[in-house]
Parts: sequence; C-alpha cells; structure tokens
Amino acid sequence: MLSAMQRFAPLPDGAEAAEGSVTHPAGFLAAGVAAGIKRSGRRDVGLLVSETPAVSAAFFTQNRAAAAPILVTRDSCDCAALQVVVVNSGNANACTGAQGHADALRMRELVAGLLSLPEEQVAVSSTGVIGAPLPMDVIEPGMERAAAKLDHGGGERFAAAIRTTDRTEKLGAADVELPSGAVRLGFAAKGAGMISPNMATTLCFVTTDAGLDAATWRRLLGDAVEASFNRITVDGQESTNDMVLGLANGASGVRLGEEDLGLFSAALRAGLLAMALGVVSDGEGATTIVRLSVEQALDEAEAERVGRAIADSPLVKTAVYGKDANWGRIVQSAGMSLSPDGDRELVCDVVFGGVPVLVQGDPVALSQADEEHIAASMADAELDIGVVLHRGDASSLVYFSDLTHEYVRINAGTRT
Amino acid sequence: MLSAMQRFAPLPDGAEAAEGSVTHPAGFLAAGVAAGIKRSGRRDVGLLVSETPAVSAAFFTQNRAAAAPILVTRDSCDCAALQVVVVNSGNANACTGAQGHADALRMRELVAGLLSLPEEQVAVSSTGVIGAPLPMDVIEPGMERAAAKLDHGGGERFAAAIRTTDRTEKLGAADVELPSGAVRLGFAAKGAGMISPNMATTLCFVTTDAGLDAATWRRLLGDAVEASFNRITVDGQESTNDMVLGLANGASGVRLGEEDLGLFSAALRAGLLAMALGVVSDGEGATTIVRLSVEQALDEAEAERVGRAIADSPLVKTAVYGKDANWGRIVQSAGMSLSPDGDRELVCDVVFGGVPVLVQGDPVALSQADEEHIAASMADAELDIGVVLHRGDASSLVYFSDLTHEYVRINAGTRT
Repeated sequence: MLSAMQRFAPLPDGAEAAEGSVTHPAGFLAAGVAAGIKRSGRRDVGLLVSETPAVSAAFFTQNRAAAAPILVTRDSCDCAALQVVVVNSGNANACTGAQGHADALRMRELVAGLLSLPEEQVAVSSTGVIGAPLPMDVIEPGMERAAAKLDHGGGERFAAAIRTTDRTEKLGAADVELPSGAVRLGFAAKGAGMISPNMATTLCFVTTDAGLDAATWRRLLGDAVEASFNRITVDGQESTNDMVLGLANGASGVRLGEEDLGLFSAALRAGLLAMALGVVSDGEGATTIVRLSVEQALDEAEAERVGRAIADSPLVKTAVYGKDANWGRIVQSAGMSLSPDGDRELVCDVVFGGVPVLVQGDPVALSQADEEHIAASMADAELDIGVVLHRGDASSLVYFSDLTHEYVRINAGTRT
Repeated sequence: MLSAMQRFAPLPDGAEAAEGSVTHPAGFLAAGVAAGIKRSGRRDVGLLVSETPAVSAAFFTQNRAAAAPILVTRDSCDCAALQVVVVNSGNANACTGAQGHADALRMRELVAGLLSLPEEQVAVSSTGVIGAPLPMDVIEPGMERAAAKLDHGGGERFAAAIRTTDRTEKLGAADVELPSGAVRLGFAAKGAGMISPNMATTLCFVTTDAGLDAATWRRLLGDAVEASFNRITVDGQESTNDMVLGLANGASGVRLGEEDLGLFSAALRAGLLAMALGVVSDGEGATTIVRLSVEQALDEAEAERVGRAIADSPLVKTAVYGKDANWGRIVQSAGMSLSPDGDRELVCDVVFGGVPVLVQGDPVALSQADEEHIAASMADAELDIGVVLHRGDASSLVYFSDLTHEYVRINAGTRT
C-alpha cells in the first residue's frame, strides 16, 4: 500500500515501507473476527490493543449528526490515554437515538471488562449502514472471540474487520531510522466503501512504538491528518462516523527527541496520506485521483473554498472520468466561489498535467505535442491540475476522485 | 408546459394557460433561425423584439467568470428599457477573452443597426460550449435572416433557437383576467441541456403586454425569479451565462393598478416556476423533481444552507434516483451544514411524501401502509421531502433533480 502510492505520497529518506499493518510496531495486539453483522460472513469486529499504557490522539467528524460511538469516544473517554480500540463494520450505529448510545456504551463496557482496563481507555468506532439498531446479540459474542484471539500478528485481520465494501485493502507499515534509533509505524484505514448502500465513512488507525508525550503525538498526528484526510474529497459528504485515532506506546524503547521529529513526522504524514489516497482511489467507483493545486488566491479561505468547489463539482468530476481536459468547468466552479471583493471578474490560468491551457483568461493554442501530453496525463490514474487565480498569494491542495457510472450504480442501489 | 406543471406550479384563479410563447402577448415579434452554429442544423439564433418601447428587467448570473454577453448586457445596456434580445445557442462566448467581448459587442451593434434602435436597448445572450470563439462568419448572416423573419407568431421558433440539447421544450403563455382588464404573459426558457457536453446554462425570457413602470416590473420579476430560478438546483453549478430577462410593453392597453398586482404577480410567478421546474425535470438525465422543505432552522442562512446541502448531495440525489427513502443521507447532509452554535447535536424529523420516517432523531417503525405510501411517492415524478430541524423558526424551499447514469453519460462525453 505505502509503496503503491509513491508519486503523490513518497516516504522520506530514512523511512522504508514494511509488510503488515497496525501490529507492525512492537507491543500491539490485534484481532478481527466475523461476528455475523455482515451478511457476507466477512470479518466485522476488530480489536486493537496496546500491551502497555499508550499516549493517544483522536480526531472526529465535525458532523453535528455524529454517530453514537463518536459521541461516546469523544465525550467520555480519555482521548490522550486510550489503550484499546474496538470497531465494528456493517452497522454505523448512527441516527439510532438513545438505544444506539446505550449500545455504544455497552460495547465499551464489555471490552473494558474483557481486558481489565478502565472504560475511559477504550475507544469505540463503527461504520456501515445508518439508522438500524446494532445487532448486539452477535456483537457481544464477537467481541469476546476477538479478545480471545488478540495476537501480535493480527493487524491485517483487524484491517479487514474495519472495511465494508472497499474494493482494496488500506493498510501499511513503515520502518523509520531516526537519529535516536529505529521505530515503527502501522496503519489501517477504510473507505469509501458502502454497505447496503449508505454513506461512506472513513476510519483510520495508526500505531507506533515510538515514545513521545501525548501533546507531541497529538500535534504530529493532527498535522498529518490536516495534510491528508482533511485534504481529500470523494463526494463532499462528511460522514457521521469519521475517526482517525493514533496510539503510541513507546515499546521500541526509543524516546523521540527534537532531532527525530522531522523525519518521524514526514514518515507519519506520508503513511497517512497514502491511506487517505487509498480511500480516494477506492472512493465509490473512482478511476482517477486528481491532485488539485489552487494558487494565488486572495486568502486562505478563498483558496480552500475554490479548491473544494472544483473538487466537488459534478461537472469537473465527470469530465475527469471522461478524460476531457475541460478547463471551462474549472473556471466556472472557481468563478462561483471567490471571496467577495467587489465585482472584479476572474482572470485565471489553468494547467493540466503541467501544460497551461488557459493563461490570464485567454485560451492557449495547444500544439500537437501539448495535446498528446495532456491526453497522456488524463489517462493516468494520478492527475495534476493547477489553477492560478492571480488575486493574492494564498494556496491550497485538494485530492479528489472522479464521478463515474459506478458511483451512481453503488449509491442508487436500494438498501436491503 | 404551464399545464404540465400543475402540482408544483399551479396558475392562480383568474389566469389560464394558453398556447404559444413569448409572442403570445400583443406587440411582440420573434424569430428563430438555423445559422449554422450547431452542427445538428437546428435553430441557433433567436431574436425577440417589442414593437414599441418597453420597460425591462434583467437578472444575471453571480458567477465571477461571467461570459462576454453577460458583461455587455449588464454593464453597457439600459437594462430598464431594453426593447430587443438577440440570443445564440451552440456557443456560450464564455472564457473567450478580449475577442469574445468584441464579438458580443458586434452582435449588439449589428442587431441595433438592422432594427434602427440604440445599442443600449439591445440585450445579448449566448449559451453553449465554453472557451471556443464565436463563429461570427455564420452568426452575422444568421442575425440578418432572423431580423428579416420577425413575426407575431415567431415565439416558438425563438424558444427553439435558445435551446441546446434540452430534451423537452420550455415555453408557455397565460391569459390573465385582471380587475383592470385582460393581459397576457409569454415565457421561453432553456436548460439544463448540454452542447458538446459542457456546463448547463439557464436562460429565460418573459414578455407581457401589461403596462407598468420599470421599477414595478423589476420588483415583480425579481420576486418571481427569487421564488423560481433561485430555488432550483441540478448540480449546484452556477453557470457563466445565466440570464432571466423580461419585457413589458403595455400593448394590451391595460395599465396595471394596485388592485391588479396580486393576481398578475401570482401568474408571473407560476409561469416562471413552471419554466424553472421544466429546467430541473430536464436537468441532465433527471427522472424526478424533489420539492425539499427545510423548517425550524436557526436562521434564514441556515435554512438555505441546509436546503442546498441536501439538494446538492450526490448521496441524496442517487438515493432519489434509486427510489430509496434514505433519510440517513439527509440527516448527514444537514448535520454538516448547520450554523455554528456550540456543540449541540442535531435532533431532527424527516418526512417522505408526507410520512414521518424520523421524529426527534428516533427512527419511526413504519406500518405496511406507510411503506407503501412512501414507495408510491418515490415512484412519482414529483416528490416532497421535509426536514424539521427543531432549532428555530426559519424555513427554505429548494427544488432539485436526481443524479442518474444519464447525468454521468452526458457529462463524461468528450467534447468534439
């Protein structure tokens, strides 16, 4: 996974991709079992445990219709000292009212009891269909079996248990040679798959055996989330269940110093970006990932808004699917999302795969070689598009997927 | 057209649908010719003229990448005293730089010369492909032929000439019996068709032989635009070329008094809403029009934002296409677009076709009869969805179309 994302998410020098997932770092146990939530019979309950107390950091959806597991973890766990994550897939436990809240609390209570840990150190996470009650009759024995199967090699089974109808696995690991010694990182993510078609949810779990304090871990992980999961969009729809959660247990014996943070942070960021891009490229029928750069915006807010407007425009997304370098749709999206600053008309540049097609508002007469270069770029699974607004010096970067027949097929299917 | 839209856009008592279009009111001439812009050989240059000086009102796209004809009409015409509209389809004259601006001016100059009117009284409008220069070599003779063919019965040919790949015609007329006498209204609109797939543009032209002053006409038409074209969305993409333009020439001899304005305004609004809904129902592959009501929002801005978020959510739009009453996706869209007011979680109601499916955040156990009623509503071409936010007393209404395979097919096609 990590090595498959070389172009947009290269690991820094000093870090190397490794086999495995969240149990690649020392001192982590995981399991993934088929409890029977998914009709397919696939793994649907996962458990991830640090053998020793860990520092942790968690980032949650901003959606105000947040699911019960988000509320329980966010509001009544010690999110800087989590040691365990229990996840189920196949049911999001979202829009489930008071019963859903009680079920999320029960999941936490049961796992805490099985592992003899305080409830505040157990995070709860769910993904899947919305609005249906959790089938606690199968989840409870499932959690018991998962606890019994916890294993140092269980990371990939855990990663499988958090996925829904993802077409591809999203996991990876890295070895990082820091000045202070060797540490490891492990990743598992899911999305933007569907189960009984419903909204996509992104979950991502990160482990490391590096030693660092909770505040530093939160800062590094937050920066990496900002540069990865917060920069992607499949359909502009923020889920009720999104969660990124990281555990750092220090089991490597390497305590990070200032001199280690640059490389560690770069490796963490590359890994998280690889997971996020994995979600985009598996996003509901997607065939292409676009890296969209917006430059010379009036301010940060405008750069962000223009980037999101272009990335979420169904006209731009279908044009990418159609391999059509349709810069008119990009200018139109930008034109409707500028910051208010009088009636000044937009005069911009657009660049496809490195070739300018519009400069200062005037279409470029393309050579045959240019046309061929653009066509080759559009045919690639990773496409660069640049927009220069000539209004200021703020910029933004957004990664997005195209809108395809498969997206409609997946999402227009009836729930069963 | 007007009578086909009875449910969502009924004409008021005292108004009756009539045959015809923008030349149904007295004193209007129109023409539509095939100049050769469209490869199909269909009509692509239209001319609409009031025989006598008229009062006028025009409303333009807010897009800051507005096309040349928008800039010319908006910035250098007398928009309260227009007497002529010249329109071409097949080419939007958008993103065409200085040449495009010169071409729009030339269209205006030529028509003003042909009709011996001041240039300031001639509006210019274009729709079609973006970024290609206008083929003036065919447009100029086309405009001359249109001027030679102006006719009191030319409204339907004009309406044909403004369409691109619309599947259905969008025109209509009404007779209105006011206290002060009989007046007539005529309508022609286009959208959301594509030509050599590119962005949709909405144009709408309204005529009346009622007599009223420019300020009143602007206020009535503005209110009607607000309640119709400003309440629809197909894909959330504001075009570079949108224009609604109305001409009122007083040729009926009936000068409107205060006692006439209520009925006249209601008929105008119903006609404009019928045109707008015609655009939605013909919107790029659409199979269903949804009338979405958002109630009890914190404030107007929130009501509007939540309505737009739901209407533009590809997950909601594909669910409507799939005839799936997927209220979870509606709650999710609402939850991501609330006004900031602390961390209060959303607790809302959702109603499909009159049947509550979520009440105060709790899913409703539906009876067999409820399920059947919902299924029948979803199968209708006009569907009502209601969302009650329980946060305040502001509300909004938005009309939107579904997202279908046909939408992707149309928009992923390569420009030729």
